[in-house]
Amino acid sequence: MIDIGIVGATGYTGVELLRLLARHPQVNVKAITSRKEAGMPVAEMFPNLRGHVDLAFSDPAQAALDQCDLVFFATPNGIAMEQARALVDAGVRVIDLAADFRLHDVAEWEQWYRMTHACPELVAEAVYGLPEVNREAIRSARVLANPGCYPTAVQLGFLPLVEAGLVDDSCLIADAKSGVSGAGRKAEVSSLFAEAADNFKAYGVMGHRHLPEIRQGLTRAAGHPVGLTFVPHLTPMVRGIHATLYATLNEAGQAADLQALFAQRYAGEPFVDVLPAGSHPETRSVRASNLCRVAVHRPQGGNVVVVLSVIDNLVKGAAGQAVHNMNLMFGFAETLGLEGLPVLP
Amino acid sequence: MIDIGIVGATGYTGVELLRLLARHPQVNVKAITSRKEAGMPVAEMFPNLRGHVDLAFSDPAQAALDQCDLVFFATPNGIAMEQARALVDAGVRVIDLAADFRLHDVAEWEQWYRMTHACPELVAEAVYGLPEVNREAIRSARVLANPGCYPTAVQLGFLPLVEAGLVDDSCLIADAKSGVSGAGRKAEVSSLFAEAADNFKAYGVMGHRHLPEIRQGLTRAAGHPVGLTFVPHLTPMVRGIHATLYATLNEAGQAADLQALFAQRYAGEPFVDVLPAGSHPETRSVRASNLCRVAVHRPQGGNVVVVLSVIDNLVKGAAGQAVHNMNLMFGFAETLGLEGLPVLP
Amino acid sequence: MIDIGIVGATGYTGVELLRLLARHPQVNVKAITSRKEAGMPVAEMFPNLRGHVDLAFSDPAQAALDQCDLVFFATPNGIAMEQARALVDAGVRVIDLAADFRLHDVAEWEQWYRMTHACPELVAEAVYGLPEVNREAIRSARVLANPGCYPTAVQLGFLPLVEAGLVDDSCLIADAKSGVSGAGRKAEVSSLFAEAADNFKAYGVMGHRHLPEIRQGLTRAAGHPVGLTFVPHLTPMVRGIHATLYATLNEAGQAADLQALFAQRYAGEPFVDVLPAGSHPETRSVRASNLCRVAVHRPQGGNVVVVLSVIDNLVKGAAGQAVHNMNLMFGFAETLGLEGLPVLP
Amino acid sequence: MIDIGIVGATGYTGVELLRLLARHPQVNVKAITSRKEAGMPVAEMFPNLRGHVDLAFSDPAQAALDQCDLVFFATPNGIAMEQARALVDAGVRVIDLAADFRLHDVAEWEQWYRMTHACPELVAEAVYGLPEVNREAIRSARVLANPGCYPTAVQLGFLPLVEAGLVDDSCLIADAKSGVSGAGRKAEVSSLFAEAADNFKAYGVMGHRHLPEIRQGLTRAAGHPVGLTFVPHLTPMVRGIHATLYATLNEAGQAADLQALFAQRYAGEPFVDVLPAGSHPETRSVRASNLCRVAVHRPQGGNVVVVLSVIDNLVKGAAGQAVHNMNLMFGFAETLGLEGLPVLP
Repeated sequence: MIDIGIVGATGYTGVELLRLLARHPQVNVKAITSRKEAGMPVAEMFPNLRGHVDLAFSDPAQAALDQCDLVFFATPNGIAMEQARALVDAGVRVIDLAADFRLHDVAEWEQWYRMTHACPELVAEAVYGLPEVNREAIRSARVLANPGCYPTAVQLGFLPLVEAGLVDDSCLIADAKSGVSGAGRKAEVSSLFAEAADNFKAYGVMGHRHLPEIRQGLTRAAGHPVGLTFVPHLTPMVRGIHATLYATLNEAGQAADLQALFAQRYAGEPFVDVLPAGSHPETRSVRASNLCRVAVHRPQGGNVVVVLSVIDNLVKGAAGQAVHNMNLMFGFAETLGLEGLPVLP
Repeated sequence: MIDIGIVGATGYTGVELLRLLARHPQVNVKAITSRKEAGMPVAEMFPNLRGHVDLAFSDPAQAALDQCDLVFFATPNGIAMEQARALVDAGVRVIDLAADFRLHDVAEWEQWYRMTHACPELVAEAVYGLPEVNREAIRSARVLANPGCYPTAVQLGFLPLVEAGLVDDSCLIADAKSGVSGAGRKAEVSSLFAEAADNFKAYGVMGHRHLPEIRQGLTRAAGHPVGLTFVPHLTPMVRGIHATLYATLNEAGQAADLQALFAQRYAGEPFVDVLPAGSHPETRSVRASNLCRVAVHRPQGGNVVVVLSVIDNLVKGAAGQAVHNMNLMFGFAETLGLEGLPVLP
Repeated sequence: MIDIGIVGATGYTGVELLRLLARHPQVNVKAITSRKEAGMPVAEMFPNLRGHVDLAFSDPAQAALDQCDLVFFATPNGIAMEQARALVDAGVRVIDLAADFRLHDVAEWEQWYRMTHACPELVAEAVYGLPEVNREAIRSARVLANPGCYPTAVQLGFLPLVEAGLVDDSCLIADAKSGVSGAGRKAEVSSLFAEAADNFKAYGVMGHRHLPEIRQGLTRAAGHPVGLTFVPHLTPMVRGIHATLYATLNEAGQAADLQALFAQRYAGEPFVDVLPAGSHPETRSVRASNLCRVAVHRPQGGNVVVVLSVIDNLVKGAAGQAVHNMNLMFGFAETLGLEGLPVLP
Repeated sequence: MIDIGIVGATGYTGVELLRLLARHPQVNVKAITSRKEAGMPVAEMFPNLRGHVDLAFSDPAQAALDQCDLVFFATPNGIAMEQARALVDAGVRVIDLAADFRLHDVAEWEQWYRMTHACPELVAEAVYGLPEVNREAIRSARVLANPGCYPTAVQLGFLPLVEAGLVDDSCLIADAKSGVSGAGRKAEVSSLFAEAADNFKAYGVMGHRHLPEIRQGLTRAAGHPVGLTFVPHLTPMVRGIHATLYATLNEAGQAADLQALFAQRYAGEPFVDVLPAGSHPETRSVRASNLCRVAVHRPQGGNVVVVLSVIDNLVKGAAGQAVHNMNLMFGFAETLGLEGLPVLP
């Protein structure tokens, strides 16, 4: 049983984290802090938690986070980097669900996030929390950078191909579609129901912050820099990411059994499900669960490989992966608290 | 640990039942029968179950349902009444999620359902499975009639007022709105996405099959026949029912503390949550959970009482209530397998 | 050909007004003012107008609105009452799509809208722009109060019954459901896609600003004060209002031919369509058009009459009705610019 | 004024065609045939047409289609090819909104559509009705093959680049997303609201019938065979297609001004709108209109060009383009009957 603190949690990542932790048998959520909402019962903001989460948001000053075993940051970018140092020094482990510790290259981070990094020395130490890549490092992490939603879906789809060197990785294409909860619980016109419903659009074609994060992960997998075009889209659903990935097979790739490659790469992974050949994963097949489902296609037997990868952006793309990482960090069973089945329809 | 059989289960009630039973620690699903789909893995039809439910649909003739402890019928109306007799005689208990055993008056049933009832003698014995009304009778039921979705939401909203005799029950109005999953997984034009999305309509104003069921329950609660106008509507969401109920308070009602009345009526009920005065329950606050949340209002302090009642039609309105009834029938903790929090957003 | 000015128009009512006026053969839109957005091309905010509306928002000070024949206020409440006096004095006619001139009783207005009314003397003169009731007065109006969306749908549904004295008008019930565009284009958390999608809820049960407006209209129709319970709901669609109306028939009402009553009341009305007996109007059947479709039911032949009334909240409930009123005020054919068919699916 | 017959029209393409023709000043719809629905008023099936279309579906045998000037086929594939010969021989011109005359290579057609073609000689004569490519040929066409929805969006996006030879056209990628109305008004489980809402998926990755149609058009534009990967997706909205197109620029392409290229290619085209550099077109910006809006991007100044192309699948992707073609064939102004603005929100 460990004591948990949560900083933030007034957004969708936060409520999902609380939904999962409320049923986790090994955690005790001691404090949920929000300067702005201090005093408000959490279940008043998120009515699904009523009867399950009795805490109110507390003022950070009163929260004694330094006496927790673990603190989650479910905050906007730029908050965790201000507070992680003190917590780590107090022996508290940290999982940041925002982007502060995701990019190893601080200069690149500062360019994309348009802030000066407050804590570059922890960047060097931080572990990127994609368990399918970094499982062992995660176990002992003091500062864990929980991956972004698009980067999770895109990396898991490309990794088998890139690691095995079977595609021309100078020209990878990731066409990704996200539900609107990915835009967060901020009051913005572009996320209004009457703007986003019955509508579809791309955004950020000229550059999205998840691009360098994906590129970093795939570069590591390839052993050399990769070229990536990443186009995110907004689709009128609440949850879910669908990544459609394109690459050109090289000679080795054309000779390979791609279905077997994916099956072997993810054998034993509790949260990656490789679908049978010919499948088309649906986002709802992973809704509210920590699964990533992937399928690999080679249309008309040509040289282009198409990978379809779906996750729930709030679970495997955020809160669920954070709980998975917590389980690894504290030696719990990996799937603890994450056993709920996807909700369909 | 009990052995379970399921007849049908190719619809939304079925997949939801399987989602819940897959995590229930005291049940073993032995067979899921479907003449039409025999041989097909259940998880092929319902991809959320992949990795959690390994059974294939089996032919009813091979299924040995008579060796189960309990058989659920997740079938269209008219199936359970054909098969229940033999199962009961073999010592198997039956929960029918369809309507075959819901109305005590067989003649009325035959009129609304336009069939001759195949098993009237079990109608007399069958227990109507609304635990908040019939808890004790449910425990020993051999044949349990699981309530309809609208009837659950409407009865739970009206019961405190009608039982206490605080309203003019000759003129009750239930304006109910359902998500489209309530229409089932049948291939019908009216349930197509392009028909039901961005659209709202009433249906069945001249008479819906849930009208006599609700009237029966409220008549029992009142101790005399009640008058009810029931108008169902289709709203463009997947899950959820919102019932808005109207009644005129009589003198006793005008003097009563309605908030206290509701709180007392449902004190200790694990699946009914009375919201604070002034609340507006949202359907998503109960999504994927077995809760009914209700709020009672008296607008402008007048004589009209307005009750708002929300459920997930597939859970408290179908599969979840069936599991609750099963728990009662077999002496399990009432909430076993139903602990999942609502999924929001 | 008349010259038009529009104040505001940065919301959904505004863009819909521009969509309609862009195809109206008798109007010339001279200026669209917005202090906040001055300089921005209107089509940049509303991409559907690109290629059809070339104006930019202009600063109110520069707009010479006093040289227009007509000025529309598509503004929040409280703006038109500040500016209407000067325009009227300059000979400009005014249509306010907000609520400033809707309630004859200034004290009641101030109580519901929580502002001091800046121009009570124009309230007395203002004409309530429901053409089906006030056609002749509208023709000569200098200040026209365009009705609210809910009030349009509810009044058109109740009017035949209330005018003819066929129901107990001390206890009218209006259960109304609106698409989310009714909440406007304001950046508010409650209107976010991830809040409003796949969700249904009531709001404002204890009192909504459209209640006194509806009550005023029905009281006028009845010739005496009526009792009304009005419960608005938010339904996950972009456009549309569905009002479900309940009343108890008195003796005369029980004897009347309600279908004929509705048909006669709206005979010749270009924008009210009385459906055949037994019909259930759908909101999409009026989408993007100025129609109100109504159906009248008497379930099970009882004493309760149920009226179903649907409109597009942005057209018949706002911009379209404003254009209809403009047509009347300037002697154009009533349907001019409003001939577009509903868009379905 | 011309006389029009319509065969079929019980689907979404049909109702949209009727919506447009009902306001077209130069056409008289004489007959709408449907063997199955003969006798049923069209407005009963499509309530938006009530008051605007008074015809009933008629039996094909009685419809005297051979006395029309033009017959539209809004039918499933395989119908027009059976009836076109007789109509053409009777001097009637034909527009087929299905696929019977789209592919010049009859053998390829038969392979993809799994039918023997009943009228190969008219295939040779038929004109592919993409006005931006074939305007002059369309004017004199006797048999016009109206393009598919995906092919319209994809071709209009790729054409400027392919015609100018600026990309490696051996490896074009089209990632396309369609609203659910694209699946038609057939009663199929996969198109149910509760299946398609809050869900996103690819389909037909191994081969979709629109692939050869797009390839044929781009091959013609390039002057040599092109390589194309086409992945369609289903997105939870009613109308709209968003095509995201990827290609690698060759040396000439890297040197070119792509924005100018697109602007020049479509200068004077009434129904293609090239957006300013940096734009992200939204499907709703063309909803219910005949526009295609396109934007061209070169992310991070690299060698990959990304084109975004949006249409309303039922208008520019079907009925609207058919009316455009009719206008060309009969010498009407190109935009006649297609002047309605997009409906937003």
